[in-house]
Amino acid sequence: MNEYALLHSPDSKFCFATGEHELVIRLRVAREDRGVQIMLVYGNKYEYHEKRMECTMNIAYSDQLYDYYETKLSLKDVRLAYVFLIQEKDEIYYYSEDGLTKSYNFSEGFYNFFQMPYINRNDVHTTVDWMRGAVFYQIFVDRFRRGDFEKDDSYIDMEWGDLPTPKTFAGGDLKGIIEKLDYLKDFGVTAIYLTPIFQSKSNHKYDISDYRKVDPQFGSVEDVKTLVQEAHKRGIRVILDAVFNHCSDELPEFADVKERGEESPYYDWFLIDGAYPDATAGNYECFASCVYMPKFNTACEGVQNYLIDIATYWIREADIDGWRLDVSDEVSHEFWRLFRKAVKQEKEDCVIIGENWHDAYPYLMGDQYDSIMNYAFTKSCLDYFARGTFTGEDMANKLNRILMRNTEPVNRMMLNLLDSHDTHRFYSEVGCSKEKLLAAVALEVMFPGACCIYYGTEICTEGGYDPDSRRCFDWDKAHWDTYVWGQMRQLLHLKADPTLAYGSAYMKGEGDCFYLERRDANVRYTLWIRLNQGVYELPKEKQKEVVLSHGYREGRLSLGYVIMREEFV
Amino acid sequence: MNEYALLHSPDSKFCFATGEHELVIRLRVAREDRGVQIMLVYGNKYEYHEKRMECTMNIAYSDQLYDYYETKLSLKDVRLAYVFLIQEKDEIYYYSEDGLTKSYNFSEGFYNFFQMPYINRNDVHTTVDWMRGAVFYQIFVDRFRRGDFEKDDSYIDMEWGDLPTPKTFAGGDLKGIIEKLDYLKDFGVTAIYLTPIFQSKSNHKYDISDYRKVDPQFGSVEDVKTLVQEAHKRGIRVILDAVFNHCSDELPEFADVKERGEESPYYDWFLIDGAYPDATAGNYECFASCVYMPKFNTACEGVQNYLIDIATYWIREADIDGWRLDVSDEVSHEFWRLFRKAVKQEKEDCVIIGENWHDAYPYLMGDQYDSIMNYAFTKSCLDYFARGTFTGEDMANKLNRILMRNTEPVNRMMLNLLDSHDTHRFYSEVGCSKEKLLAAVALEVMFPGACCIYYGTEICTEGGYDPDSRRCFDWDKAHWDTYVWGQMRQLLHLKADPTLAYGSAYMKGEGDCFYLERRDANVRYTLWIRLNQGVYELPKEKQKEVVLSHGYREGRLSLGYVIMREEFV
Repeated sequence: MNEYALLHSPDSKFCFATGEHELVIRLRVAREDRGVQIMLVYGNKYEYHEKRMECTMNIAYSDQLYDYYETKLSLKDVRLAYVFLIQEKDEIYYYSEDGLTKSYNFSEGFYNFFQMPYINRNDVHTTVDWMRGAVFYQIFVDRFRRGDFEKDDSYIDMEWGDLPTPKTFAGGDLKGIIEKLDYLKDFGVTAIYLTPIFQSKSNHKYDISDYRKVDPQFGSVEDVKTLVQEAHKRGIRVILDAVFNHCSDELPEFADVKERGEESPYYDWFLIDGAYPDATAGNYECFASCVYMPKFNTACEGVQNYLIDIATYWIREADIDGWRLDVSDEVSHEFWRLFRKAVKQEKEDCVIIGENWHDAYPYLMGDQYDSIMNYAFTKSCLDYFARGTFTGEDMANKLNRILMRNTEPVNRMMLNLLDSHDTHRFYSEVGCSKEKLLAAVALEVMFPGACCIYYGTEICTEGGYDPDSRRCFDWDKAHWDTYVWGQMRQLLHLKADPTLAYGSAYMKGEGDCFYLERRDANVRYTLWIRLNQGVYELPKEKQKEVVLSHGYREGRLSLGYVIMREEFV
Repeated sequence: MNEYALLHSPDSKFCFATGEHELVIRLRVAREDRGVQIMLVYGNKYEYHEKRMECTMNIAYSDQLYDYYETKLSLKDVRLAYVFLIQEKDEIYYYSEDGLTKSYNFSEGFYNFFQMPYINRNDVHTTVDWMRGAVFYQIFVDRFRRGDFEKDDSYIDMEWGDLPTPKTFAGGDLKGIIEKLDYLKDFGVTAIYLTPIFQSKSNHKYDISDYRKVDPQFGSVEDVKTLVQEAHKRGIRVILDAVFNHCSDELPEFADVKERGEESPYYDWFLIDGAYPDATAGNYECFASCVYMPKFNTACEGVQNYLIDIATYWIREADIDGWRLDVSDEVSHEFWRLFRKAVKQEKEDCVIIGENWHDAYPYLMGDQYDSIMNYAFTKSCLDYFARGTFTGEDMANKLNRILMRNTEPVNRMMLNLLDSHDTHRFYSEVGCSKEKLLAAVALEVMFPGACCIYYGTEICTEGGYDPDSRRCFDWDKAHWDTYVWGQMRQLLHLKADPTLAYGSAYMKGEGDCFYLERRDANVRYTLWIRLNQGVYELPKEKQKEVVLSHGYREGRLSLGYVIMREEFV
């Protein structure tokens, strides 16, 4: 028994509620110990010394080093005490708060059993159900579509289609998006996520000077309302970008501090080392090193109330369906807790998606966000599809490892993405390989959680890092690869299948393929991806009805993917 | 390199702030890998690809399996990115979010470095400073001292000194405690913690029917105020018991629900399966299986406000210094977050101590409690001092393991105890060995955190489980072992030493002794404990000025302990 590898802790991603009477328990075990039998020995904590039950745990996930055993319990009385019983050949071990031991004293278990002492309703992380099967479409507003030709367009300083520079404006707006809602619906999109739309002098609008005013370049509050209404009519949800870590130095409250210094009632809203903020001296906290983006002090009650009022205002006013939180990992946990409470009170199924590029578990324990932009998924896709540094097996290990960072409800709401306005375009990363792009989208669709397509991906838009990843959408269909577009459309429409929304996930490397299986009681989907040239013969017994494929023919897969479906009788 | 053993996660007990510009970073490594060199490679996350610093990490704690390397950083700009560099002989490894690798691509670190993206002031878990050196004295009020001889004493149904039964009353009260404050001060006590004092029909008063009324058996609100004032004059703080998981079925709000069922405005305050609560059917949630103690629904806003008002009322009204939280692990996290905020707003250095018998990390992350009753420490003391199932080395391993459950601020506020009203008396557990009792108290005093003496321990009160652990205090000094009392008094007075309050802690087994060292820049304290008969010669070079001892003479220790002190020049 590899004792070093064992890991469990209650009331965490290793033991979490999925309802008031339901919980999931996981135990991490060294992969080299495969073959051991793991039992959960559980009972009511007040009777555990005399009355216990047992159930078997099975391997649900595996990464390079570890297997993760899992079981789901439904309990009327959730005052749960438990230890793990591990059988390795003829040896019996117990695993409790005190570690691995050869015997366990149940009569003194109250000192060292694991426990989930109670599930209080208000601590359950409820899954926003529509996220499970959601297909997001991320729009960089200035570059997607211009719809308003009556606005003052003197700010536009590039031709639609020119390569963007950091500071040029192309003229995209909300009316343009409204015009294209039918296009998006037809393409399979069920949610759009817009980069910031509030008043700001930049094209990206991450430096906001009025959080209640839509930038006139993009439209008006009325346009937001219309967009949401029209989107909702088409079954499309709308998520806005909450830039709450920092603002523009033109925000009136910051301007007041610049003028009045410590005398300003807003002085505590920011983090200033001195009586006045001084951009030249850089004596105040800001985003990265951008002095035109002063950081909010989210420990200040005034700031907390101000930002939360904005968050609820847009839900009330325009009925938006969620917030994506910019630079959310630099904002205080306490603020996100207040934010969550206010947002969920306003609209229960409003989703909260953090921009945390790293393991964000401390924010995803149910009291702050629901989800993050899954850049760890992005990085794995780069390693596998673009760089060839991952085999299919590496990929399966890595994706399992990423799933094990979080609870099941969080994984079901995760925003999986290949690229965004903050990365190179994935299509360019894979060397403009259409096969790889399609296979990667197939993975996004089949993977647990929501998938997110960055605008233009469907028409094979190329692009390097910002500003190149923010090119204008090319609406001239003559330039499109309609085969790629059509395949991607079919893939995205698959996402709505309940088996993909609710089913279990199992991944592994098989031969030189990556293999992903999703299943529920009635249906099994399997995805095979292969990135090597030449032909690989898939195992015969696993060939079922082909749903979608590229590079696949009669049991043979070359560079591409195949999705198969099997119904149980 | 034992890869299975490596453990780290940012923004957790492995990486936590101790101030706005200070943080501690820990890495867990297999003990068998002792000898490797561990460096922290760190920098500003926005410049990490091109600018990094390094610092060495050292072993701060060790348990049976693992070493815990630690470093403390002071940073002006805390937007920290880091990875660990591990050198094992000629091999170099990197440990990042992606695990252990032979090389690391710093230019793409933004995908997988570890990070502490920012320390927001409101997320720092501030240490309640007075807890570091606190000597608590826990009083079971009915049994400590009767001071009021004018009260209606018709409820008293046992002679002072009779063995208690579950339901007998002995007559102890607040006036009795006030009378003995000088005694407690002289004995070295700096905080008293009282079991519940509010209106209740039981002798323990864990079934409260009026949270704003002191039970007339114990006194009045005025008596609480006097107690706190008089205690404060003597440098003694007062902690009350918050029974917020459940109440008495005589609480007016529950009585109203019994009468009006679903029509009652208090119906949602409780968790009832049916229109009316029915004690016979047991159709409502309660503490353990005690139907006379219905459980509060702390997800209900009405309950939240009601209980929080009580918590702040007693701080405002009587200036108490903290709350001990009964059955706190069955109450919702959300409630404790609201509770903390309200309590700390009322009195910043008010301490919050949960009654969690198990690893309570999910409650000790800074947003809920400060501390818990450290029953894991209790259990270790039983295994070492009482049962002989632990050697000195086992004890050191186990106490290190317990310290590694939590952050440094939490460890400094931990309420370490040998026994309480909910256990057997420790003195009985060690077979009435005065040597072992004194050695255990020496450990409590020397161990990081506060220590807590259960009333009567100083006079060698015996007792089994409840009700026997709740005997009357014997005020007849003729019955006391004045040697034990005097030694214990000297030990407790040591606790105030700043080296014990702030210094580092290091533990190990040495020979057949347990060894604990506390040190700061100027002073080192060492504690040796030995539980075997016969004489053990301590290593010569380590013998310094003896502060206190039992069973020690001229470098030789038999059953007992010795505390030595050394000043650096």
